[in-house]
Amino acid sequence: MENYIKLYSYFRSSSAYRVRIALNVKMIPYDIIPVHLLRNGGEQYSEKYKKVNPLAQVPTLQDNERSVAQSMAILEYLEEEFPRPSLLPHSSFEKAIVRQMCEIVNSSIQPLQNLSVTQYLSNTLKLSDEQKNAWVQFWILRGFESLEILLQKHSGKFSFGDQITLADCLLVPQVFSASRFHVDMTHFPKIVEINKRCMELTDFIKASPEKQPDYQP
Amino acid sequence: MENYIKLYSYFRSSSAYRVRIALNVKMIPYDIIPVHLLRNGGEQYSEKYKKVNPLAQVPTLQDNERSVAQSMAILEYLEEEFPRPSLLPHSSFEKAIVRQMCEIVNSSIQPLQNLSVTQYLSNTLKLSDEQKNAWVQFWILRGFESLEILLQKHSGKFSFGDQITLADCLLVPQVFSASRFHVDMTHFPKIVEINKRCMELTDFIKASPEKQPDYQP
Repeated sequence: MENYIKLYSYFRSSSAYRVRIALNVKMIPYDIIPVHLLRNGGEQYSEKYKKVNPLAQVPTLQDNERSVAQSMAILEYLEEEFPRPSLLPHSSFEKAIVRQMCEIVNSSIQPLQNLSVTQYLSNTLKLSDEQKNAWVQFWILRGFESLEILLQKHSGKFSFGDQITLADCLLVPQVFSASRFHVDMTHFPKIVEINKRCMELTDFIKASPEKQPDYQP
Repeated sequence: MENYIKLYSYFRSSSAYRVRIALNVKMIPYDIIPVHLLRNGGEQYSEKYKKVNPLAQVPTLQDNERSVAQSMAILEYLEEEFPRPSLLPHSSFEKAIVRQMCEIVNSSIQPLQNLSVTQYLSNTLKLSDEQKNAWVQFWILRGFESLEILLQKHSGKFSFGDQITLADCLLVPQVFSASRFHVDMTHFPKIVEINKRCMELTDFIKASPEKQPDYQP
């Protein structure tokens, strides 16, 4: 059966943004189905969307009738179903380095600054905006310190050598989030350089929040 | 070159616990090098350990002179270097479901309740023990609700069908953490059942915190 890809996406979700980049780089045709995470208490909780993904998460990738959620699981799925161009290097050790870069963003930064966490900080813990910002900045800076060390060692034109990899699909959306939170990027020259190089490419530009059908300023 | 595996591990780290399970199930010989995350301000910050892993994270897997950190990256590396027995099912869609289960633990639960986060909650935000417990329980319950839905659909004897997969390597350490935080497991019968079945197996028992050389009550 031929692949027919739909991506349930929210323009500002950095996890959806990762998948949009990978789909573009791999030249996979796909339809975007916007799911607004704030409107009507969150469209991801609607009965209609829960038929697509009972876990009420965005993004969800649908390939014909098969649904996959969690951006890392989606990215690995795309890599297996659409192996060319590959977003992983060749050897298992090099793959591990790329996945390590991805995980710094995926498990050490993003989970601590996503919408449900900042909502908990505001609504349940009643943190001030200043405290909330300090929290978000702390985790982004901490993760970026690790990522910068790996990039200093392994980057070329892109995060790992001279080819685009999954690490770039994770890096760019995280830099976008960092800029929303006014993170000082002075100590991360490689992150800044690679983000800039990626953002000159059509595949990355087309994936960005402001180019999405559901974009709102 | 033959593989020679060392695992830098802390008995209570749930990420190290995941890797210990996978190494045991795959029958890979390995040496444990304990790194105490609390003693002397955290041994992971020592100059000696930073030569192994400049990011000062545990676990780190060393295969001869090559170091890999981040448990998901390590698990995928082991799967590629030691493919039998496999910890992933055959088709790319089935693999995606297993990875989705893993990511619920890896990116939606564990990052919000690990040591550095609970330290921030206590030391910087000055939360009471009650508030801290409520935070940890909130994220574990939320993640387990999603995981239980997937298990109800896909589990057999184990998380995905009747073979041990990476999903079981993630589930068991997370249930261990949940018990430390006294999470009410009433609404997660499948998680409880699969954890119990895994904990009857030598490979899982040998990986548990209390069986580690650095265990402290």
